[in-house]
Amino acid sequence: MIIVMSMGATEEQATNVRDQLRSYNLTPHDNYGTQRVVIAVLGDVGPVRDVLMGKLSVMPGVESVTPITRPYKLTSRESHPDDTVIEVLGKRIGNGTLTIMAGPCSIEGRDMMIETARTVAAAGATVLRGGAFKPRTSPYSFQGLGVEGLQYLAEARKETGLPTITEVMEPGQVEVVARYSDILQVGTRNMQNYSLLTAVGKAGRPVMLKRGYGATIEEWLMAAEYIVSSGNPHVILCERGIRTFETYTRNTLDLTAVPLLHHLTHLPVIVDPSHATGKRWLVRPMALAAVAAGADGIMVEVHPDPDAARSDGEQSLTFDQFGDMAHALFKIHDEVRTLIKDPFAMTGPAAIDGASKH
Amino acid sequence: MIIVMSMGATEEQATNVRDQLRSYNLTPHDNYGTQRVVIAVLGDVGPVRDVLMGKLSVMPGVESVTPITRPYKLTSRESHPDDTVIEVLGKRIGNGTLTIMAGPCSIEGRDMMIETARTVAAAGATVLRGGAFKPRTSPYSFQGLGVEGLQYLAEARKETGLPTITEVMEPGQVEVVARYSDILQVGTRNMQNYSLLTAVGKAGRPVMLKRGYGATIEEWLMAAEYIVSSGNPHVILCERGIRTFETYTRNTLDLTAVPLLHHLTHLPVIVDPSHATGKRWLVRPMALAAVAAGADGIMVEVHPDPDAARSDGEQSLTFDQFGDMAHALFKIHDEVRTLIKDPFAMTGPAAIDGASKH
Amino acid sequence: MIIVMSMGATEEQATNVRDQLRSYNLTPHDNYGTQRVVIAVLGDVGPVRDVLMGKLSVMPGVESVTPITRPYKLTSRESHPDDTVIEVLGKRIGNGTLTIMAGPCSIEGRDMMIETARTVAAAGATVLRGGAFKPRTSPYSFQGLGVEGLQYLAEARKETGLPTITEVMEPGQVEVVARYSDILQVGTRNMQNYSLLTAVGKAGRPVMLKRGYGATIEEWLMAAEYIVSSGNPHVILCERGIRTFETYTRNTLDLTAVPLLHHLTHLPVIVDPSHATGKRWLVRPMALAAVAAGADGIMVEVHPDPDAARSDGEQSLTFDQFGDMAHALFKIHDEVRTLIKDPFAMTGPAAIDGASKH
Amino acid sequence: MIIVMSMGATEEQATNVRDQLRSYNLTPHDNYGTQRVVIAVLGDVGPVRDVLMGKLSVMPGVESVTPITRPYKLTSRESHPDDTVIEVLGKRIGNGTLTIMAGPCSIEGRDMMIETARTVAAAGATVLRGGAFKPRTSPYSFQGLGVEGLQYLAEARKETGLPTITEVMEPGQVEVVARYSDILQVGTRNMQNYSLLTAVGKAGRPVMLKRGYGATIEEWLMAAEYIVSSGNPHVILCERGIRTFETYTRNTLDLTAVPLLHHLTHLPVIVDPSHATGKRWLVRPMALAAVAAGADGIMVEVHPDPDAARSDGEQSLTFDQFGDMAHALFKIHDEVRTLIKDPFAMTGPAAIDGASKH
Repeated sequence: MIIVMSMGATEEQATNVRDQLRSYNLTPHDNYGTQRVVIAVLGDVGPVRDVLMGKLSVMPGVESVTPITRPYKLTSRESHPDDTVIEVLGKRIGNGTLTIMAGPCSIEGRDMMIETARTVAAAGATVLRGGAFKPRTSPYSFQGLGVEGLQYLAEARKETGLPTITEVMEPGQVEVVARYSDILQVGTRNMQNYSLLTAVGKAGRPVMLKRGYGATIEEWLMAAEYIVSSGNPHVILCERGIRTFETYTRNTLDLTAVPLLHHLTHLPVIVDPSHATGKRWLVRPMALAAVAAGADGIMVEVHPDPDAARSDGEQSLTFDQFGDMAHALFKIHDEVRTLIKDPFAMTGPAAIDGASKH
Repeated sequence: MIIVMSMGATEEQATNVRDQLRSYNLTPHDNYGTQRVVIAVLGDVGPVRDVLMGKLSVMPGVESVTPITRPYKLTSRESHPDDTVIEVLGKRIGNGTLTIMAGPCSIEGRDMMIETARTVAAAGATVLRGGAFKPRTSPYSFQGLGVEGLQYLAEARKETGLPTITEVMEPGQVEVVARYSDILQVGTRNMQNYSLLTAVGKAGRPVMLKRGYGATIEEWLMAAEYIVSSGNPHVILCERGIRTFETYTRNTLDLTAVPLLHHLTHLPVIVDPSHATGKRWLVRPMALAAVAAGADGIMVEVHPDPDAARSDGEQSLTFDQFGDMAHALFKIHDEVRTLIKDPFAMTGPAAIDGASKH
Repeated sequence: MIIVMSMGATEEQATNVRDQLRSYNLTPHDNYGTQRVVIAVLGDVGPVRDVLMGKLSVMPGVESVTPITRPYKLTSRESHPDDTVIEVLGKRIGNGTLTIMAGPCSIEGRDMMIETARTVAAAGATVLRGGAFKPRTSPYSFQGLGVEGLQYLAEARKETGLPTITEVMEPGQVEVVARYSDILQVGTRNMQNYSLLTAVGKAGRPVMLKRGYGATIEEWLMAAEYIVSSGNPHVILCERGIRTFETYTRNTLDLTAVPLLHHLTHLPVIVDPSHATGKRWLVRPMALAAVAAGADGIMVEVHPDPDAARSDGEQSLTFDQFGDMAHALFKIHDEVRTLIKDPFAMTGPAAIDGASKH
Repeated sequence: MIIVMSMGATEEQATNVRDQLRSYNLTPHDNYGTQRVVIAVLGDVGPVRDVLMGKLSVMPGVESVTPITRPYKLTSRESHPDDTVIEVLGKRIGNGTLTIMAGPCSIEGRDMMIETARTVAAAGATVLRGGAFKPRTSPYSFQGLGVEGLQYLAEARKETGLPTITEVMEPGQVEVVARYSDILQVGTRNMQNYSLLTAVGKAGRPVMLKRGYGATIEEWLMAAEYIVSSGNPHVILCERGIRTFETYTRNTLDLTAVPLLHHLTHLPVIVDPSHATGKRWLVRPMALAAVAAGADGIMVEVHPDPDAARSDGEQSLTFDQFGDMAHALFKIHDEVRTLIKDPFAMTGPAAIDGASKH
C-alpha cells in the first residue's frame, strides 16, 4: 500500500498516518522527496486492506492511497502457478483440450433435451447444458421447468455419458441442483450474490461463475475467491459480455479477458458467445475468435427448432449449425495449439496497473 | 411492436411474419411503402413480448423489430397515474415531504447504533438505516453482526420512534429481517436476484430497491415489477450510481434518473450519495443536487467516529456534518417546492425513445 | 512513480529498473519487504512520465507501475491554489456569481438571434450563446450559417452589452471566430483535437472546453493543459454528459464532476443540461441540481419557437420557460451560497485515487 | 419513422403530428389499436430525419419516435451490396486476402523506419505504417517528426514497394500528408472532427477511419458517410477498442464489431490490437482472434527496440515477435477461409434493432 502525502502536508499528518498503520501492526517505510513524503507498506495487508485504505484516504494531508497487491489470493496465479484442471465424468476442463458446452437455453421437455444431447454429443460437445431454473428479466416470462427439468438433464447425461451443467439461483436450490447436475452454474446477475457464492462453495461440485455484465475482472476474481475460500477450488470462469454504450449488440464480448485471465489466475476460462451477441449469426465468428484468443472452451445454446424455443431462440443454433461450428472450432483449436507453443512468449513481464486509458 | 421488413424481402416472408403474429392471437397491421413493408402490432402483447420479439428478429426478410410499449406495467405511471405514497410508523415517503434515511453503514454495536439514531433523529432524519447483513466484495471483510445487529436496530427504533431500513441478502433471511425492520432493502448487487425479489414481494413490508450499478432504468423498473407482481405495491427506488469509464469517483451518480423516473413511474425515488461518490466531502454537494433535482429523499451514512468505522468510514459523515447537511437540505427542499409548482410544466409531451446518442 | 516488483523478481531485474530510472536522471528509493521490492520515484517526473511508465511496465520482473503525481500541472489546484476568475465585458465567471449562458443552438437568422438575446438578457443571462459553425453527426444536417451567423451574434452583443460565446471547429476558423466572439467554445467531439486546442491557446480569447462524451476527467484536464500551456490561462470547463450504457437519456450528466473539479483544478466549471439530457423537460431539474452541486454556471439552449428550430429544438427552452428557470436558479444559488459557507468543510483530506469500484 | 401516441392522446394531437409530417412532404400511415394510435412514415425521410424526430418527440401526446431506417446511406450494404475492395500500389484490401499493416508507432528516424520496413515486408506485411504527426494526450510528450518523418516513410515505401499509411490531424495537413503517403489515417480522437473528415474526403487517397473510443458503430458509420459523401468511396474502418468500465486493459476490443460491420456495410474492416490492449503480450492472441472473427486485416506496432521507443513501446512488437505472429496469422486466416465458405450461413435474417440488453 502506497500513501502519497499532499505537497502541503505537515510532519504531524505524516506521523498520524504512520500511527494508523502501526495500529494495524503494519510497518511504514518512508520515502522523502523534495516536494512530498510517500509512505509505503510492503507485504500482505490481509483482510483489513479495503477498510484501511478507506480510512487512510480521508486522513488530513493524504493525497492518495494505492494498493500494491491484488485483493484476491487463492484465485491468483502468483499464489498458485499451475493451471487448475477440473475433471468431471472423465472430461477435463483447462488441460489444453477444447471444452464445448452445448444444449438448450431452457429445458422445455424430455424429448427435446434427449434429442439435443445426443446430437451435440455426436458432434463433439464435451458438456451438456440446459436451464431448469431460469432468471428472466421479466416476471411474466417462462421461468423454467424446475426439478422436472433437472430430471431430464440427468437422463440426458445417462444417455450420452457427458457431464452436465445447469444454473442455480439461490442457496435453497443448491442441494437439489447438485443432486442432479455435475457442474453448478452461477449466472451473470448473481455474480455478487454472496450468499449463493458461499453456498456453492460448500456444494462439492465444480462451479462455473459467469462474469457479471457490469463487473470488472477484479470483482469477478473476488467473487471466485468467495467460492474457493468456502472450500471449493474447482471454479471455471465464463466470459459472456459486458455492458457498454454500444447498442447494436446485446453486450460487448470482452475477449481480451481470456489471455488476461490466463495471466492473472490459474482457473480455466470459457466464453459464451450466445449471450454476448444475442444473435445466432454472430455466434460462430465469436466462438472462433474465442478459441483463437486461447479460451479453454465455449458454451453455446443449441435447440432442435430455435424458432419455437421458449427462451433465447434468436441466439440458439440449429443442430446443423452446431455441427459445422464444432468441426471448425476443433480445427482452429488444433492449429492455434500447434502454432503457439508458449502463449506467454510475448509476455516478458506483465504489468497491467497504472494503465492510463487512451 | 413494429416489424420492419428489409428492402429485398419477399411477400412470402411478410406473410410468414403475419402468420407468426396470428399464432399468438395478435393482429398485424400492414404499412406499405415504396421501398419496404412495415408491419405493426398494436396494444399490449403481454408476457410473450420478449420471446416473440426474439423469434421475429431472426425470421428471413425481417430487418428489425422494435417494441412500442414498455415491458413494465404495474410500476408504470401510464397504468397508475397517481404517486405511490408509502407510510411507515407515521412517516410518509413520496408525498412531497423530504425523506432523510440516515445511520451507520454497519451496525457495529448497541451503543453506537443508539447514539447515532438519537443524533440523526434530532437533526431531522425520518428513517433509520443500519446494516446487519453486509454484502462485501471481499470474503475477508467484516460481514456484519447479523441478527444481533437487527436487535440493536429495533431498539433504536423504539428509542426514537423512527421507522428502520436494513438490507436483506437472500430469501432465507427475509422472515427474520422483516421481524425486526420496517423497510427491507435490496442491495445493488442483488437487483436482479429474482428469488430474493419474489421473496420480498411476499414479505408484507415496504421494500427499497437499489439500482444495480450496471443496470438500465428499464431493467430496474422490471426488477421492481417482480416485487409488485408478487403482491407488494410498496416499492421505493434508490439511485446509487452506475458503473462508467470514469475512475475518479467510485460510481457516476445518475441524477437525471430522478426526473425521468418521476415521469415513468409512480414510485418514490431516493438518492444515495454516499455509495455513489465513496467520499465524505462529495456527499453534501450531491445530496443538495439530488434534492434540487426533485428526489423524494436521500439516504446517507453517519457514524459517531467515521475514522474507526468497520466499513465505509471514508464516506460516512460525522454527527456535525450530518446536522449541517440536513439543515441545508430542508431549506433547499422548501425553496425548490416553492419555486417549482408544477415539475412537469416544461414537459409538454415526454417522448424518450429513439433518442440518438450525441 | 511506484514500481512494484513481482514476488519472484530477481535482484538483477530490480537493478535494471533502477538503471532505467537513473538514465532519466531520476533517483530510485528502495522499499524492501519480505515478499517483494517496491521502488519509488519521488518528485515530478516531467514530460517523460507516460513513456517511462510504459517502458517500466513491460520490464522483466515488474508487476505494476503506478503514478503518484497527476499529469496535469498548470491546470491543477495544487500548483495554483486560487480560483481562476475570467472577466469578459465586465462579466465575471468563476468568482462566486452565477453565470448563465443562453441562446439558440444554431443562429438561424438575424431577427431570431437579436430577439433571443434581448429576452435572455432581460431574464438575467450573463453570456449569449449561438452556433454559427455546427458539428453535426450527419453530413446531411444543417451545418450553420457560418460567418453570417457570427455577424448576427456580434450584433446581439452590441444590442445587449453581453459577452458572447460560439463554437470553433478547426484551426483555420479560429481567427475569424475570435474576431466576432468573446469566448471560443471547443465542442465535445473536438476535446482531443490537439491542433485546435493549440490554436485556441494562442487566440487571446477565453476558451470554454466541453468534456468529450467519452473522456475521463483526467483526459479533460490534460486537454485544458494543452490550451493553458499554449499561453492561454483563461479556460472554462463545461460538463455536458458522458456516454454510458443507459439509453433513456442521450447522455448521463456527471454532476459529481462539479465538486470534484473544484477540488482538482482552479478553473471555473459550467454545466450544460440541454445536451446532456436532450429533452426540454429535463433541463430545469438538472440545471437546478447543477447549481445546488456548486457549478459556477450553466449553459442552456433557448429558441423563440423551439418546434421550428433547425437543430436541437427538442431540448431548447421557450422564452417563458427560460425566464422561470433563471428566476429559480438565482434563488437556489443564493440559498446554497448562504448555507454553505465553506464548500470543503467536509473535506478534511481529499484522496481520490485507489478508489476501488463497488 | 414510427410515432407512438400515448394512451391518453387526443385525436387533435394525432392530427397535429400528421400535419407536421405533411409539412415535410411525408405521408402518415395510421395504425389504430384499442389503446393507442401509431403513425408510421415509410420510405426514406432524407436529411431532415434527426431534426424531425426531435420535433415530433416533444409534441403533445407523443409517447415515442423510432426510426425505421438507418441514417447512413452510402456506407450501408443495403444500398451497395458488393464489398468495397481498395487497391493501393497493387495491394488489395477487402478482397478476402489478409492485410497486415505494420511499422513503428512514431517514425523516430530514417534508419529505424527503413530497417523496420524491410523487416516487416519480409515477414509478410502488406502496408507500412508510421506516425509523423502524433496526437498525444499530454502536451509535454513527443509530438512526432512531422514532414521529416513523412519523407522517411516515403523512402521506406520506395525500398519495399509497399503502400504506406500515416495519420493526419487537421485539414491544413491533408495536402502534405497526401503527397507522401498512400493511405490517410484519421485517428480515434478525430473520428468526429468533421472539418477533417470533409478534407480527407476530397484528398483523392484511401482513408482509414479509426473508431472513436467512445463512439457507437452507428456514429462510426456516420463519420465514414462524411468522407464518402465528400467524394471519396475508399474508406477502411479500423476497430481499436472502446472505453468501458474495465480498467485492467487500456480499452475493450470490440471484436463483435467485425462480423456486424460486414453485415451493415460494404467497407473493409481492420483491427488494431496494439492500441486496444496497450500491452505487447496481449497483441498476438487478440490479432489471432480478430482474424478468426473475419477481419480483413490487422494493424500492429513494430519497433527495432521497443524498450527504447519514444512512444507506445510497451505495446510494440520486436521483429521476431512480429515474424512469428504474422506466420500464425496467415495460417489461421487460410484455415478460417477454408472452413467458413459462407460467413453468413448462420444469418438467415439479421435484425439487430430492438435488442434489449440482458
